[in-house]
Amino acid sequence: MNIPRSVEWVGDIDGHVRLIDQTLLPTVLHMLDLRTVEEVWEAIRSLRVRGAPAIGIAAAFGVVVGLRTCGDSLAARLREVSDYLRTSRPTAVNLFWALDRMERRAAEPRSPAETRRLLLDEALAIQKEDAAMCRAIGQAGREIIGAGKGVLTHCNAGGLATAEYGTALAPMFLAAENGVPFHVYVDETRPLLQGARLTAWELQQAGIPFTLICDNMAAQVMKEGRIHAVIVGADRIAANGDTANKIGTYGVAVLAHAHDIPFYVAAPSSTFDLSLADGSAIPIEQRDAREITQGMGTRTAPEGTNVYNPAFDVTPARLIAGLITEKGLIRPVNAETIKRRLA
Amino acid sequence: MNIPRSVEWVGDIDGHVRLIDQTLLPTVLHMLDLRTVEEVWEAIRSLRVRGAPAIGIAAAFGVVVGLRTCGDSLAARLREVSDYLRTSRPTAVNLFWALDRMERRAAEPRSPAETRRLLLDEALAIQKEDAAMCRAIGQAGREIIGAGKGVLTHCNAGGLATAEYGTALAPMFLAAENGVPFHVYVDETRPLLQGARLTAWELQQAGIPFTLICDNMAAQVMKEGRIHAVIVGADRIAANGDTANKIGTYGVAVLAHAHDIPFYVAAPSSTFDLSLADGSAIPIEQRDAREITQGMGTRTAPEGTNVYNPAFDVTPARLIAGLITEKGLIRPVNAETIKRRLA
Repeated sequence: MNIPRSVEWVGDIDGHVRLIDQTLLPTVLHMLDLRTVEEVWEAIRSLRVRGAPAIGIAAAFGVVVGLRTCGDSLAARLREVSDYLRTSRPTAVNLFWALDRMERRAAEPRSPAETRRLLLDEALAIQKEDAAMCRAIGQAGREIIGAGKGVLTHCNAGGLATAEYGTALAPMFLAAENGVPFHVYVDETRPLLQGARLTAWELQQAGIPFTLICDNMAAQVMKEGRIHAVIVGADRIAANGDTANKIGTYGVAVLAHAHDIPFYVAAPSSTFDLSLADGSAIPIEQRDAREITQGMGTRTAPEGTNVYNPAFDVTPARLIAGLITEKGLIRPVNAETIKRRLA
Repeated sequence: MNIPRSVEWVGDIDGHVRLIDQTLLPTVLHMLDLRTVEEVWEAIRSLRVRGAPAIGIAAAFGVVVGLRTCGDSLAARLREVSDYLRTSRPTAVNLFWALDRMERRAAEPRSPAETRRLLLDEALAIQKEDAAMCRAIGQAGREIIGAGKGVLTHCNAGGLATAEYGTALAPMFLAAENGVPFHVYVDETRPLLQGARLTAWELQQAGIPFTLICDNMAAQVMKEGRIHAVIVGADRIAANGDTANKIGTYGVAVLAHAHDIPFYVAAPSSTFDLSLADGSAIPIEQRDAREITQGMGTRTAPEGTNVYNPAFDVTPARLIAGLITEKGLIRPVNAETIKRRLA
């Protein structure tokens, strides 16, 4: 099973970062070898690596690369490198989390050589823990994918955004590893086409049979009996299970419900925001109209067209059959079952 | 109210055909002046004029243009011109219907000058009847659009495809003419984006306020309470009211039903196929995968991607609140009410 690894460390302590330039997918698979912290910063900034966990891992490796030129004071250089990497994507929570963790690991006084070794081990541990968490999500969702079944997914919640496996795609990668034959239907996911560009590419790399559809074909595919389960990722989950995810997710959930198809959300426990009682408090980001009017570089709507372009929507818990987490499958979905499992 | 006229006749008997080159929309509004039958043939063939009624009208005018050089025998030339135009779009029913009608009109022996005059009148009558039919559809659907309401439409069933007004857009044009303030939400309609390219353009020309959305945003817009009715066109309607229309229509109908929003289909009585008991017998055309993988000229999915690209879907009658026809609003929708109204 060839599951794409978005980021990895090549060699030993004097090695470097290698990552997939995601801006070139799906037409070109180009691996970037990054040997300076400036190169890592640019890769994060320019979305060559994307997805919160993958960004955190890239930044942690970036610290190790940055310490190759540490001069007299490793502590001073570490602070410099970390502060610099923090400016690459100002709103990425996992970026700060990973850099904080790296700084904490270096707090104890040791020789520069020892500290560098500890930091490489820490970065590798962050990566390994993320891979293990994705794998645990995959295990928790394995029973959903039966032999001969069809699964629909929306957007990209796969290995490219994480250390491996991903979240929504993790049960699929695990089922495939176990030789279960099944078929994935991939929503292209307008306006930015993460389904067509990234999910299709990942499934193709892994040798999992799939069919790409336009978002507006999901209802027809369900009606034809081709879909037995829907699995999507999540950006934020409220205490009662209401789930914010890529725009279009809510529509898929309504359609699945109308066709008696179970709809699942896969996410690590860190995605839950128990401070929110329900989804009504989750803000919906509005994005640039040009994503819709000039998709793929061509103008497809008249000049002056008024556009509504919400980046996310919120799916109410009542439409969600189960939440697939690294702590197990939460089913049914309500404040009580979530609290019990995450405690 | 500036409702786009897809095709018109300019001048008197020695005049010519003028039409909007729809292949250049929405970025360029270019009027083509066609003075030979070869030019009319090319415009139909190359989809510069599209939509079954508009094609029929263009062909009828094409006959008149073709007879400007009729030599000795007008009858022979008419046959030649008509046979030639029939080869422009081999599957367009309205094309054959319009040309048959023109040939019948010329059957009586008269002077060439008289016959040419009769044929121009006939072509103008075809156009006028279509415009009247669209207007009657608009009248039948007028009550659906109340002041301050939001209406969602999918694909393009507007004036560009007909002599004027269109079908699904006709109630909107009439409401606007009557000064009713309302707002249209336009699904962009992947893969070919007829909503973004054509419906958005028509509404803009007519000065009707609208907002363009991706297909997967319809559910969110409904949830936010912005939509009070959905109106779409139809490609074929079975005896029980099951309706084939552009892919994505069925999904919109399911979403509307889940949000308690009435869903209407607007179509002339010629769209009904009473020989089909229900929609299960309507064949669903599969289209080229490249419409999805290389939308707008850019490759957006990996090479070798398997695609499902149905051109149409079928919405069951139980999801349709009413059928808006030139013979009135059919509501509720069932075999009995349809038979009674169309009889």
